[in-house]
Amino acid sequence: MENKVFFSYLGNTEKRISEFFEKYEAQQYFKPTDIYDSVFSYIRRPAKRLRPSVLLMAAGSLGGDDREKLAIPAAAGVELFHTWTLVHDDLIDNDNLRRGEPTVHKAMSERSKKSLGVSDGVAKEYGRDIAVLAGDIQHGWSIAAFVDCALHMSVDPMLILKLIKHLQSYVIGNLICGEVLDVQYGMAKGMDIFDIDEEKIINMLWLKTGVLYEFAGLAGALIGKNSTDFEDEQVLAIKNFAGSCGTAFQLQDDILGILGDEKSIGKPVGSDIREGKKTVIVYESIKNASASEKNKILSVLGNKEASPNEVSEVTVLFQELGGTERTGKLAKQYLEKALPHLDVISDSKYKNLLVLWADFMINRKF
Amino acid sequence: MENKVFFSYLGNTEKRISEFFEKYEAQQYFKPTDIYDSVFSYIRRPAKRLRPSVLLMAAGSLGGDDREKLAIPAAAGVELFHTWTLVHDDLIDNDNLRRGEPTVHKAMSERSKKSLGVSDGVAKEYGRDIAVLAGDIQHGWSIAAFVDCALHMSVDPMLILKLIKHLQSYVIGNLICGEVLDVQYGMAKGMDIFDIDEEKIINMLWLKTGVLYEFAGLAGALIGKNSTDFEDEQVLAIKNFAGSCGTAFQLQDDILGILGDEKSIGKPVGSDIREGKKTVIVYESIKNASASEKNKILSVLGNKEASPNEVSEVTVLFQELGGTERTGKLAKQYLEKALPHLDVISDSKYKNLLVLWADFMINRKF
Repeated sequence: MENKVFFSYLGNTEKRISEFFEKYEAQQYFKPTDIYDSVFSYIRRPAKRLRPSVLLMAAGSLGGDDREKLAIPAAAGVELFHTWTLVHDDLIDNDNLRRGEPTVHKAMSERSKKSLGVSDGVAKEYGRDIAVLAGDIQHGWSIAAFVDCALHMSVDPMLILKLIKHLQSYVIGNLICGEVLDVQYGMAKGMDIFDIDEEKIINMLWLKTGVLYEFAGLAGALIGKNSTDFEDEQVLAIKNFAGSCGTAFQLQDDILGILGDEKSIGKPVGSDIREGKKTVIVYESIKNASASEKNKILSVLGNKEASPNEVSEVTVLFQELGGTERTGKLAKQYLEKALPHLDVISDSKYKNLLVLWADFMINRKF
Repeated sequence: MENKVFFSYLGNTEKRISEFFEKYEAQQYFKPTDIYDSVFSYIRRPAKRLRPSVLLMAAGSLGGDDREKLAIPAAAGVELFHTWTLVHDDLIDNDNLRRGEPTVHKAMSERSKKSLGVSDGVAKEYGRDIAVLAGDIQHGWSIAAFVDCALHMSVDPMLILKLIKHLQSYVIGNLICGEVLDVQYGMAKGMDIFDIDEEKIINMLWLKTGVLYEFAGLAGALIGKNSTDFEDEQVLAIKNFAGSCGTAFQLQDDILGILGDEKSIGKPVGSDIREGKKTVIVYESIKNASASEKNKILSVLGNKEASPNEVSEVTVLFQELGGTERTGKLAKQYLEKALPHLDVISDSKYKNLLVLWADFMINRKF
């Protein structure tokens, strides 16, 4: 029953932000066709819409139904911001699938081969070019969506300007720092080159994921409260709550990356292992491994040609050596740290939704 | 004497926006080191600073010295906006040099080989990754700089929001459309696949370059006039003036790309020819060529391995067949179309600077 309330709210968010996307008046500038198709591709695929939902719940919990409605362009903006980082990250990670369909760079590379008959090398570069530029357009659109909150929803212009500044300095800087650390850690053969440890991995997850969830909470809270006070007690509470839950989300994501199936995670089983992603799972497992188990893990991790059998051997080791268990425990700790923040928020259907969301972050299977 | 006034103003712009860059309070979020160095690399190299200068001249011409000073963060913002497009374009064009030094992707690829000892393939991908992400940070910074105009310079918040919306929809869309067309035209072996003609090439130049100059004029004019009326007669005049001059600039740039030396253009002689850039020079020359001359041109154009001798043969053909002459004539036409717009602007030192700038656009040798 509770779950039904939560998923119905997510579905409602999906409907409202999709309407915003489809009706966007400046989509005439998404040209030529390859750019238009690429800009819209991910946002037209079914997705959970967690970040915009958090923003809207935060607005509702401090400002009620009316303020929640005013926040829709900002909710669309945070989803678009997330989307451009996905398009660029997929290129960087050389991933072929996103939400069960081809990534932007992959799709455009394939299309150019068919429509122009260019060579594999030229097609690969064309795919890269369109992914970079489509992400850039989405980045622009995400900011334009925040502006729409002031131009069309009468939200305080100074608040929107301060949110844009925060997003375009603190948030983008930290998020990209997390992405670069992820790339650098992935380049390390074992755990040694960068002296990677659990604390560093969790910091990287916080940067890559927690910071944008924190922003969704912050932006929603300020729009809900109609305030420009970034240090307000209730605003800080929701901001910190959302940030902690975001980190829990990413820890759970790493577990699903190992134990989930292709249908639920939208990418092939074993991708994280073949990519050599340095997660808490990997760190904890190697820490507890015998010399031969460690060698086994390191021989498969980051090996793009690893066989399904090798991937499944390592998956078993990750469970036996306590890697997935440790990660699940950490996710739960982040959730437990998050919930007390909500004590300063009055009860409402929106506060209830925030609690359901937090629970979903660590219990989800997709 | 006139020239001295103009270059001294450019130098002054350079000093003022560099101070803005170096003092930026949120640079603490440019992390890790490879990102920090990449974000600052192009803007710390000597450059003409034409776009921010146009923005400041426009502000001064409609608002005098005081309003011109308030526009400095916006001037820095337009330079940063230009900079991220350069970082992404250099990756897309596989260029190794920018302003006489390594491009971001090249520099970071080389650094990773030295510091991490990774293979050429891994290093190339790392360079790509840092270039994409450093450009993204600069994109964010450019918008944050515009916000600073309202937060720190007391420029009308609604004007800044409207400028940001315009920049992040109309400007970015058209600019990226131009970049994609440039990539697609470059992929065409001859002029046929996309039915490229002079009009299409000029439209591409307008999109790639004219649109951002137009924006610099528009933003400066509105800040100068302290108005949010995008349709004001004087504002439109400066906007259209700047857009036409920007197109003239790009036409002249294509001439320098053929006739300039490495020192003045900051990249190796013949780059445009080896890259297969489809310019008015190429179009006009092929139009006037005999069958054997056309074959000669098409065999060298886009051939990355073309010898210096082949490049110089084609350079001579481009002059003999009227390609460079036609381009120079077009640049002059755009200038002549631009100047009458200034009739509705009162005389001032700033208007005089705008006229000097227009002249520089087609007479410059660097």
